[in-house]
Amino acid sequence: MSGLSITAPDGIPEIGPGDDLATLIGDALAASVEGIHDGDILVVTSKIVSKAEGRHVAAADREAAITAETVRLVASRTHPGGITRIVENRHGLVMAAAGVDNSNTPDGTILLLPQDPDASARRLCDALRQRFGVALGVILSDTLGRPWREGQTDAAIGAAGIRVLDDYRGTLDTHGNLLAVSAAAVGDEIAGAADLVKGKAAGRPVALVRGLGHLVLPDPDNAGQSGTARGLVRPAENDMFRLGSDEAYALGFSDGQAATAALQRVPTDLPEKAASMSSVRSSK
Amino acid sequence: MSGLSITAPDGIPEIGPGDDLATLIGDALAASVEGIHDGDILVVTSKIVSKAEGRHVAAADREAAITAETVRLVASRTHPGGITRIVENRHGLVMAAAGVDNSNTPDGTILLLPQDPDASARRLCDALRQRFGVALGVILSDTLGRPWREGQTDAAIGAAGIRVLDDYRGTLDTHGNLLAVSAAAVGDEIAGAADLVKGKAAGRPVALVRGLGHLVLPDPDNAGQSGTARGLVRPAENDMFRLGSDEAYALGFSDGQAATAALQRVPTDLPEKAASMSSVRSSK
Repeated sequence: MSGLSITAPDGIPEIGPGDDLATLIGDALAASVEGIHDGDILVVTSKIVSKAEGRHVAAADREAAITAETVRLVASRTHPGGITRIVENRHGLVMAAAGVDNSNTPDGTILLLPQDPDASARRLCDALRQRFGVALGVILSDTLGRPWREGQTDAAIGAAGIRVLDDYRGTLDTHGNLLAVSAAAVGDEIAGAADLVKGKAAGRPVALVRGLGHLVLPDPDNAGQSGTARGLVRPAENDMFRLGSDEAYALGFSDGQAATAALQRVPTDLPEKAASMSSVRSSK
Repeated sequence: MSGLSITAPDGIPEIGPGDDLATLIGDALAASVEGIHDGDILVVTSKIVSKAEGRHVAAADREAAITAETVRLVASRTHPGGITRIVENRHGLVMAAAGVDNSNTPDGTILLLPQDPDASARRLCDALRQRFGVALGVILSDTLGRPWREGQTDAAIGAAGIRVLDDYRGTLDTHGNLLAVSAAAVGDEIAGAADLVKGKAAGRPVALVRGLGHLVLPDPDNAGQSGTARGLVRPAENDMFRLGSDEAYALGFSDGQAATAALQRVPTDLPEKAASMSSVRSSK
């Protein structure tokens, strides 16, 4: 078929620490009518990878777990239910609560993201390529919020054997114009597409995407950055939204105060003024 | 089939001002092997809607056109090729260059977004429902950049006859926990999925998505906000990233300077200080 099909095999059991995910997923694929073909892409909900890796933490330790997963606080907001922290984690992913997950987990526990999502994807990819003798790609997906838009979409937080960026730079459109869009984030589009199928049925954490063989890499070793989900992460220093608006404003305000105070060098009652200004800032 | 399939019918000609898009798309669907069924969703590249609506502007007027489409500047950055402006447009969409498009357009022209993308989607939806006698949904898609992540993904900028947000609030997961994720932005996930098929072949600006009939609305009139792409727009006042980091910092810096200068200039006049501070707070 010239298009794309996505199915979600059944038969994948509830996953627990130490389970051999590659074998369990492979068995479900082998038993499915779709089977597994050259050029197929598997999208695996990262939560079951976390479960297999035993990334459970007591729910009571949630805030400490988020702090431990955090490299950099991007923004936070207090609301009636507590504090939402948007943070950058060790993998460069900017996520609410650092990706720490408290849905669909056994009572009293929460789940951290896989230890190294690209490496987890690579292990799954290698094991399934070896078992079935086909070139396939693996994406680990998770659900992310976005600035400016309501709702969440699934995105690729781990990948192996597949190009996650489809680079159009330097190519011409049908009118001979140089294409302005630099690269399609196909890894994220595939993760989101798979969510449409996985999300509508309970207990189907894996989707099989067929029809995008041009994105599957013959050799996962020679992929470079765009062959891992890390390639979808924009470094903070290149990002116009690396810090929340309130956080950036507060930092600017404080620097503006300090700059003016230093310029004017009025030594008389500065400590008192500084205290008054901080209280104004924190009341915002 | 239990999953999802996406195909891109051929036979849609190059579109020009005044073309009857519903008839041209309908003819292509009628001639395709897939046909059109109850519950199908059509994803239409917004660019061909702009072309049919004659939204061409001379390329020389690009910067003025961006300014005219802009409601609010969110962030901008100067680079060797010029200035990139991320702006909010009349439809609440936050986009680079206000969505003004200079790829795949006739020489010497650029394209504005459709005048009212939700209304354009609705006209297509109504005409195709009437012609084929089936309940179908229509999404107009465009390509958006995202903070924090490399590459672009397609998103829904117009919609009719379909729920663009799949609301999970208040539902329980398989362990009986209340689901934390509020709503899946299925409209954007569908637009991105369609891009995977449209993007790999030139001259296929429409994709047919089959298998998501649960999202298609029997009556497009009773859809509320989540039945239009407007429902995917988060109002700026609720957004932690409503302003670029540099822009928010600069505003804070300037306010911080002014506040300190005001305090030091008039050390005894308390009422004036209070007034100055409240203007700082409300200017954010």
